[in-house]
Amino acid sequence: MALIFSFDHAHGRPPLELRRLLGGKGANLAEMASVLGLSVPPGFTITTDACRDYLAGGWPEGLSAELTRHVRRLEKTMSRRVGDPDDPLLVSVRSGAEISMPGMMDTILNLGLNDSSVKGLTERTGNERFAYESYRRFVSMYGRIVLGIDGRLFDEAFEGLTGRDGEGGHAEPSAPALAQLVEQYQELVEAETGTPFPQAPLEQLRGAIEAVFRSWNAPRAIAYREREHIDHHLGTAVTVQAMVFGNRDNRSGTGVAFTRDPATGEKTPYGDFLVNAQGEDVVAGIRNTLPLSAIRERFPEIYKELTGVFAKLEAHYRDMCDTEFTIEQGKLWMLQTRVGKRSGKAALKMAVDMTRQRGWRISREEAVARVSAEHIDQVLHPQFAERPATVLGRGLAASPGAAVGKAVFSADEAIAAGARGERVILVRNETSPDDIAGMIAAQGVLTTRGGLVSHAAVVARGWGKPAVVGAEQLRITESGFLLGGSAVAAGEYISIDGSTGEIALGEVALAPPSPPMELKVLLGWADRIRKGKLAVRANADTGADAATARSFGAEGIGLCRTEHMFLEGDRLPIVRRMILAADGPEEQAALEELREAQREDFEAILVAMDGLPVTVRLLDPPLHEFLPSIRDLELKEATVGLDEQEKQLLGAARAWQEMNPMLGLRGVRLGIIKPRLYEMQVQALMQAAAARVAAGGHPKVEVMIPLTVTRRELALARSWVEATIAEETKDLRRKPQVQVGTMIETPRAALQAGELAEAADFFSFGTNDLTQMTFGFSRDDVEGRLMSAYLQLGLLERNPFENLDEVGVGELVRLAAQRGRAARPGLKIGICGEHGGDPASIRFFYREVGLDYVSCSPFRVPVARLAAAQAVLGETA
Amino acid sequence: MALIFSFDHAHGRPPLELRRLLGGKGANLAEMASVLGLSVPPGFTITTDACRDYLAGGWPEGLSAELTRHVRRLEKTMSRRVGDPDDPLLVSVRSGAEISMPGMMDTILNLGLNDSSVKGLTERTGNERFAYESYRRFVSMYGRIVLGIDGRLFDEAFEGLTGRDGEGGHAEPSAPALAQLVEQYQELVEAETGTPFPQAPLEQLRGAIEAVFRSWNAPRAIAYREREHIDHHLGTAVTVQAMVFGNRDNRSGTGVAFTRDPATGEKTPYGDFLVNAQGEDVVAGIRNTLPLSAIRERFPEIYKELTGVFAKLEAHYRDMCDTEFTIEQGKLWMLQTRVGKRSGKAALKMAVDMTRQRGWRISREEAVARVSAEHIDQVLHPQFAERPATVLGRGLAASPGAAVGKAVFSADEAIAAGARGERVILVRNETSPDDIAGMIAAQGVLTTRGGLVSHAAVVARGWGKPAVVGAEQLRITESGFLLGGSAVAAGEYISIDGSTGEIALGEVALAPPSPPMELKVLLGWADRIRKGKLAVRANADTGADAATARSFGAEGIGLCRTEHMFLEGDRLPIVRRMILAADGPEEQAALEELREAQREDFEAILVAMDGLPVTVRLLDPPLHEFLPSIRDLELKEATVGLDEQEKQLLGAARAWQEMNPMLGLRGVRLGIIKPRLYEMQVQALMQAAAARVAAGGHPKVEVMIPLTVTRRELALARSWVEATIAEETKDLRRKPQVQVGTMIETPRAALQAGELAEAADFFSFGTNDLTQMTFGFSRDDVEGRLMSAYLQLGLLERNPFENLDEVGVGELVRLAAQRGRAARPGLKIGICGEHGGDPASIRFFYREVGLDYVSCSPFRVPVARLAAAQAVLGETA
Repeated sequence: MALIFSFDHAHGRPPLELRRLLGGKGANLAEMASVLGLSVPPGFTITTDACRDYLAGGWPEGLSAELTRHVRRLEKTMSRRVGDPDDPLLVSVRSGAEISMPGMMDTILNLGLNDSSVKGLTERTGNERFAYESYRRFVSMYGRIVLGIDGRLFDEAFEGLTGRDGEGGHAEPSAPALAQLVEQYQELVEAETGTPFPQAPLEQLRGAIEAVFRSWNAPRAIAYREREHIDHHLGTAVTVQAMVFGNRDNRSGTGVAFTRDPATGEKTPYGDFLVNAQGEDVVAGIRNTLPLSAIRERFPEIYKELTGVFAKLEAHYRDMCDTEFTIEQGKLWMLQTRVGKRSGKAALKMAVDMTRQRGWRISREEAVARVSAEHIDQVLHPQFAERPATVLGRGLAASPGAAVGKAVFSADEAIAAGARGERVILVRNETSPDDIAGMIAAQGVLTTRGGLVSHAAVVARGWGKPAVVGAEQLRITESGFLLGGSAVAAGEYISIDGSTGEIALGEVALAPPSPPMELKVLLGWADRIRKGKLAVRANADTGADAATARSFGAEGIGLCRTEHMFLEGDRLPIVRRMILAADGPEEQAALEELREAQREDFEAILVAMDGLPVTVRLLDPPLHEFLPSIRDLELKEATVGLDEQEKQLLGAARAWQEMNPMLGLRGVRLGIIKPRLYEMQVQALMQAAAARVAAGGHPKVEVMIPLTVTRRELALARSWVEATIAEETKDLRRKPQVQVGTMIETPRAALQAGELAEAADFFSFGTNDLTQMTFGFSRDDVEGRLMSAYLQLGLLERNPFENLDEVGVGELVRLAAQRGRAARPGLKIGICGEHGGDPASIRFFYREVGLDYVSCSPFRVPVARLAAAQAVLGETA
Repeated sequence: MALIFSFDHAHGRPPLELRRLLGGKGANLAEMASVLGLSVPPGFTITTDACRDYLAGGWPEGLSAELTRHVRRLEKTMSRRVGDPDDPLLVSVRSGAEISMPGMMDTILNLGLNDSSVKGLTERTGNERFAYESYRRFVSMYGRIVLGIDGRLFDEAFEGLTGRDGEGGHAEPSAPALAQLVEQYQELVEAETGTPFPQAPLEQLRGAIEAVFRSWNAPRAIAYREREHIDHHLGTAVTVQAMVFGNRDNRSGTGVAFTRDPATGEKTPYGDFLVNAQGEDVVAGIRNTLPLSAIRERFPEIYKELTGVFAKLEAHYRDMCDTEFTIEQGKLWMLQTRVGKRSGKAALKMAVDMTRQRGWRISREEAVARVSAEHIDQVLHPQFAERPATVLGRGLAASPGAAVGKAVFSADEAIAAGARGERVILVRNETSPDDIAGMIAAQGVLTTRGGLVSHAAVVARGWGKPAVVGAEQLRITESGFLLGGSAVAAGEYISIDGSTGEIALGEVALAPPSPPMELKVLLGWADRIRKGKLAVRANADTGADAATARSFGAEGIGLCRTEHMFLEGDRLPIVRRMILAADGPEEQAALEELREAQREDFEAILVAMDGLPVTVRLLDPPLHEFLPSIRDLELKEATVGLDEQEKQLLGAARAWQEMNPMLGLRGVRLGIIKPRLYEMQVQALMQAAAARVAAGGHPKVEVMIPLTVTRRELALARSWVEATIAEETKDLRRKPQVQVGTMIETPRAALQAGELAEAADFFSFGTNDLTQMTFGFSRDDVEGRLMSAYLQLGLLERNPFENLDEVGVGELVRLAAQRGRAARPGLKIGICGEHGGDPASIRFFYREVGLDYVSCSPFRVPVARLAAAQAVLGETA
């Protein structure tokens, strides 16, 4: 198999399909040159096979011969020879992996210049300054990138000449000065490497190619691949291309352009252009660029040609393209193209527009597949409208959207400032139910501890409020906080981006959320694709949340956490009374009060979700979560003393305290220790359902028993639940629909799913807990403290609390679904953990497990609808 | 299939094999009658099939006819008829399930008596008093058991007659008085049931049979089956047998006897005998019984016959038998037999003796199979020599053996009392490393919280010191403790039995441990059986423990917990210095000190285990376990204030604190955060090994990495370990044997065992943690608080921390072993959790998983050796 292919090689199939072999850059160039017939400077691509061979065993046998042959062919095409002292052919050398990858060698330009060919260039261009400037750039680029010489040495020499730092700028040195600089550079090369700067063009070329190969294993490239989960064995291709010069004269120029506006999606090309410049000048941002329209004014013919090229590219790629082009003395050359990146708004608009394109069009399925979760997040939440001037640090991106406010450090301050109409960011080590009111008052939440399923993260996501959590480097002090070497005083403005985890100083301008009308259209298409295959529900605990969820398209509630109702301000004292009471009338009285309150909550939820299924999880957390902290009470006891009630609370808190609450007395275990608690909850729920029936509603209730580990445990709890249901509905003429099921959230429940299914109408995977127990990772402890180290060291490929761990936790999920359905064919199975809103996990749940529904926070529902459709399509954007 | 079989029925195979059908009692009677030809009063057995039919659908069709036929046959054999007013046949009716089961109906005697046959009995025996006493007993027994009348009503009527309570005694009522009492009883029956006392013998018989059937579902019987894991569907058989009377005259008598001494195992029959008495008189203990030798004196012929029967029984059952017999007017009748229960000492002696029996013998394999873990525990630990007078309550039996001492409530008191030469029991809510010295000073340990793998339990077992833990009902007060309604003052004597969990008041006499010489013999046989199949190692953390373990027959160390070395008094400050130090010279200095200390510890262990494998687990617990409690420090801060070092410790304790330490920063995670810690430990270990090599020893070291969840994590840790090993051994001419492996203690590790095996020379299952994570049961929280409720409610069949949960945790274990060995054939696999010493779990590990070794606490090693042999034999005692 050949190791080098020219751009116009007849592969027999579209070069784009050969990305793995030719790299992205090489494949796109070949596509333009050989398929589209665009004017592309000729050249060839050295394959990734060659790179792999090189990395495994050095310069491949036969590569030199092939290289010489292709250079000769290029020379023939261009009617110039490399190194020709009269009219030299110059080439660029670029790396190009299958997947675009920063951290690798980028580009060497002007290769082929040497002490004699520089004279030929001078002669042919009639521009000595241009020739020596090109030579200078080449020597320094080559010295730095290929020969590994510290770039600052070249910069210093250049500054010695111009008195200014860096390259480019207005004070242009004269040609002799540049020639002298080239000599200086060459001396530098010899001093640093012990050998003279290579003069033979083929030697230069081989050096550059080897440098590209080697750069595959540069530390930054490896780190990038680790982070992005790119296979280390792919290797990179190398593209060698004849140089054209946009900086030759004023009939020349260079630009980058998108075939449509990548920010808005409008159908107008968008880009930057410079007259008499090379590509790097546009990218470097040193000179002020012109809009594309400048080409129309200056080079109307070229503009026409360019828009024709754009139309051709879009029709061919069936998408918006990102291009680089150069005009050399009035001739247009396309240097690169690829499908372009775009904003969320543009992604939505283009996807919908392109289904209606004249001449070519994409299907609605393709449109759905092209939009990503990030795109949807962008249009639903506020974003930074500008890059922050000072990024202090970074935490975990816990709840998408950006927020700005004064830093405050307690819920009370947040409430007070909120009442004054001020915007605040609540900064806490971690949040607890006591912080709820402060979180409501704040624009966003920032914590130093805890992971993506910490209290702060879960609550903020539930409200669609921006949050950054687990910012471990942030240290809260007496007067503010320290982060990234800066001290931020209480009351100073900070800005956070819950989509990226960034924490910035000052007031960063925000762009408000602006869902375009195409969002609705696209989600409608998505719904049609997934209808009857994978439903999307929401996790919601109140009528208001349920209504929000329904407005976002939720098809029911997959998880209603009844404990959140217990934590509301006026109810906590009742819950505590219930805990303090021994069995008997006092307990019963407290339970009655709670029942009344829960009944109202349930009714509001059933109203909002009328006709749709509502899964209510019976009380799950350990009782000590409802009691004050032992430490606080003991401190008070040791200092000012406790009153009688506090003494009782301390006693109860001590009695119920646990070493490992996550593995403690919670879920159905609590139900078994305090059976009247579950009875009360089912009473409240069924009374709410009865009221809805009486009002003409259609409540569909699913009672979910948490944390079961054995069939008998589930059967016992189910028997109580059914007895209460029977009691509460015995006088109803029209009975509400009720099912009873369980969560699968312990490894044992997953293994015993066949047995559990005998007593369950449905399963709902609690993948948060299942992940915690399968890994032995407490989300409260490990995720914040260890996860980043584990990801950086590559010990884990992904945060398993963010993307389901397919080989570990996923095996248990798959196995449980199989066993459950084998025991009870048609068993309804869903998932209500955090993974229910993660596209990669949704794909796994649908394709590998065949779940019936996913459930996520209300604001995540649109993303889940999209991801569910993509899972059904078997594709991702 | 027939529903009734007479004792002499020709089954075609030994009736003993038909226990399931005939019940234990029926099968043994049939065996004696039909196979051994002993004189057994004739009778028949109604099968368990009949019982199951009855419980499912009432009195079985055809049973009445069969019953009548068998009664007629019995009458023919006995030449008497039931209800005959001249010479009536009386029968007994007894229940008899496959497995002997308290809580079911026991026995009705004298059935067949009625108002006319009592006269026949009078006539035939010439003893009116005897006849009416028999009739009285029958009516009250029948009234109580079959008709469900409150027994106190009969007692009251009896007291009205005798002026004394209860039955029996010296003041014997006259015959007319008894006849009058019978009338009174019959009136009572009619008043209570509304129908007269049944006079027809067949009606009486059917009533008694139905009562036996029904008693299968009596609450006590159900509870017993739940506790003992007996199938509820087995049902019971009913035995109907002609009565013989040991209370007929002075040529009559009755007794119970063991064919050997069940306490010592001596080859002399042992039992109790009464002249002119019925069986219940012997059992009731109201009259002073005579030893068996009394028979030799009174009835030398009978004695000869009896010893002949004993020899026959032993030869037939090939074991010691427990018998009941009656002598009626000079004729010996055998009423019952079964293989008898025995003490640990007797079990050992008999098992060994019976391999050398003249005439018949058992194989060594059988001898090994007949001894149980409890037997061995009994001879290795002190036992209560008497039943305690006042049992206050019960906790979990955490470490076998009994202990007596004054109740003390702090380690300091225990140390002080110990120094004064006093015996104490240390009573704590729970123990921590701070209590170690106090635990050493105490005779035994009693805690109110925590389960079988709590600190107190694990440490006490490690030392072979009696412990009862998780005595939840016990409440420690200011001046002592409350339990079972009694208040025990500090300093009062209490006694605990760590084999049963009993807590008793006062000084119960103790029998010292007395391993008979047969123990060694038997364990030697056990070793030969399991040799090369299942090795037994010990968990030991010090040289002394290792030496103990070896003396008990351990073949290596399966778990050396290096953290225990960190907790020793003088080392804790160094560990704390290491934690407080940032990276750098301070940390290094502290690590150096620890290295030196650990090196010495390791050397002592390697000396004790020279030539045998020693598995050293690198540091496992979270660092906050080495820091003082935050609560204590905060209290001090709020009251008297903290010094500089305490402030630092408080800061560190806060920084390292965790919500769920069990799922936190421990095991290899700690190694990854503090890699120099593991490096130091491996250095110390390899230096110790090098010293041993230099001294001519043969150290065999296995470095074990705890809590891994991914292959990469293990590979990374392994790479450090190997680098350190290479560094430390590079100058050695003879290298110590070293392997590197991992624990499998998270569900994910079990699932990923194939991948982990690529980087592991061995696996060791940590089934404690695996059980905790698979169930989501924290041993610190759930086991003490919830487990007893779960076992009582039948939600779990067994405590999964005591007996491996075969279907849940066991599936993960099996799967991990399969995957591990598939990836690395010949992978060595063991288990070092608490289950390593549990016979049922050992059987599972050997037979279902095929482990190479088990590891348990040193004092448990003999039990594990026995259980391992039994697992190999495929049998259990």
